[in-house]
Amino acid sequence: MTGTLYVIGTGPGSPEQITLEAQAAIAASSHFFGYKPYIERLNLGPAQIAVPSDNREELDRARSALVLAAEGKSVAMVSGGDPGVFAMASAVCEAIDTGEPDWRGIELVIVPGVTAMLATAARIGAPLGNDFCAMSLSDNLKPWEVIEQRLRAAAGAGFAIAFYNPISKSRPWQLGKALEILREILPPDTVVSVGRGVGPNRGTIGHRSLSELEAETIDMSTCIIVGNRFTRAIARPDKPDLVYTPRWVPDND
Amino acid sequence: MTGTLYVIGTGPGSPEQITLEAQAAIAASSHFFGYKPYIERLNLGPAQIAVPSDNREELDRARSALVLAAEGKSVAMVSGGDPGVFAMASAVCEAIDTGEPDWRGIELVIVPGVTAMLATAARIGAPLGNDFCAMSLSDNLKPWEVIEQRLRAAAGAGFAIAFYNPISKSRPWQLGKALEILREILPPDTVVSVGRGVGPNRGTIGHRSLSELEAETIDMSTCIIVGNRFTRAIARPDKPDLVYTPRWVPDND
Repeated sequence: MTGTLYVIGTGPGSPEQITLEAQAAIAASSHFFGYKPYIERLNLGPAQIAVPSDNREELDRARSALVLAAEGKSVAMVSGGDPGVFAMASAVCEAIDTGEPDWRGIELVIVPGVTAMLATAARIGAPLGNDFCAMSLSDNLKPWEVIEQRLRAAAGAGFAIAFYNPISKSRPWQLGKALEILREILPPDTVVSVGRGVGPNRGTIGHRSLSELEAETIDMSTCIIVGNRFTRAIARPDKPDLVYTPRWVPDND
Repeated sequence: MTGTLYVIGTGPGSPEQITLEAQAAIAASSHFFGYKPYIERLNLGPAQIAVPSDNREELDRARSALVLAAEGKSVAMVSGGDPGVFAMASAVCEAIDTGEPDWRGIELVIVPGVTAMLATAARIGAPLGNDFCAMSLSDNLKPWEVIEQRLRAAAGAGFAIAFYNPISKSRPWQLGKALEILREILPPDTVVSVGRGVGPNRGTIGHRSLSELEAETIDMSTCIIVGNRFTRAIARPDKPDLVYTPRWVPDND
């Protein structure tokens, strides 16, 4: 008998930003994998089991979940945000691709969610209002040279850029180097949105110019959105500035 | 007295893919702007008013909503998907930026949602599992040359690419031309995911190779995700193929 693996995005941190589909998938699951703080805020019932997983390696965690699902269990792999954006969905697919043949018979249900850049953008305005890229600045699984090449291509072509995994204890210099590269390509007054732990009425949100943003002020729960050359900040009395990237690009650009 | 403008993303089409925050914002609003089919599926109460808006021009629609909010009303501007991704949030910000000074005092609440590319990706696996771009193929508000330049930059640097607004009656050739450009850069067997009206157990999902995808088979409610060179399709017995883009890029790339 084959079970089900739900790969669930719970949204960017606020309980209100979860979808009804994700709530239903959580209710239908008996075993839960994922980062401990994500699991803890689910308020599991007495028959629901949080599977301890100190394992930081995503592929191993995916395999453990698939083993349980292959035994017939209803297993949940819980991510914040959206599971398909720098979270567990790709690792689960890779584990199926490279693992036991019977894992291909497991019912796999990937439940999308609001990813961090969308919540950050919503809190400050519409910095992703034109074409944009999402990039992980982690060089754990890709060479730094590829990241540099992608940064140059995206900024040069006028994409807004959202950074995931901007910085960590083991990756202290990458964000500073990325900002250096962007400063070679974009004007110093390019508007950069910076959100930390944002949700409705939660977290902090603001903006800096590309020239004044300091990597040292950023931590791993920060989402950074670098605008394009037309991104604007609007001052408002007694309210935080709005930041938006216009839908248009001028003809003479 | 100043009112509130909620700019609400209701998710990609399935009622289950709305967030709790979006449901609460709908309940708190008295006047509703937006594309008629989106409004109709909200099941408004007797005291809630759908404001007829034949107006196809987004900036004018944003201004009409701001006028009502400035009078003290609680106004909802409803988008499918996420309002910040090729939807109404940027137009609302632009209307505030260029409009009446007192519009800056309106309480503006942008409610994020699951955008179409995330729902499409979830249904087929994880095609956005590495760095990716989102691009609108509409050249109504930006020169076609900019779109070409962005396509070349994104594909050349190894981003997966999600297309929004791929084709319409008034823009019949743009998708075909975009695919031509991608075929100059990417291998013919690049895996392209194609979703139409997808949600949990809804719509159609599948994949084609870049060489076999025909623009004539695509309509405006289709979401297309072009993989990178490492994107893979996994065959499964009695189940649709999974498509995923690996989290890694090899060192020798």
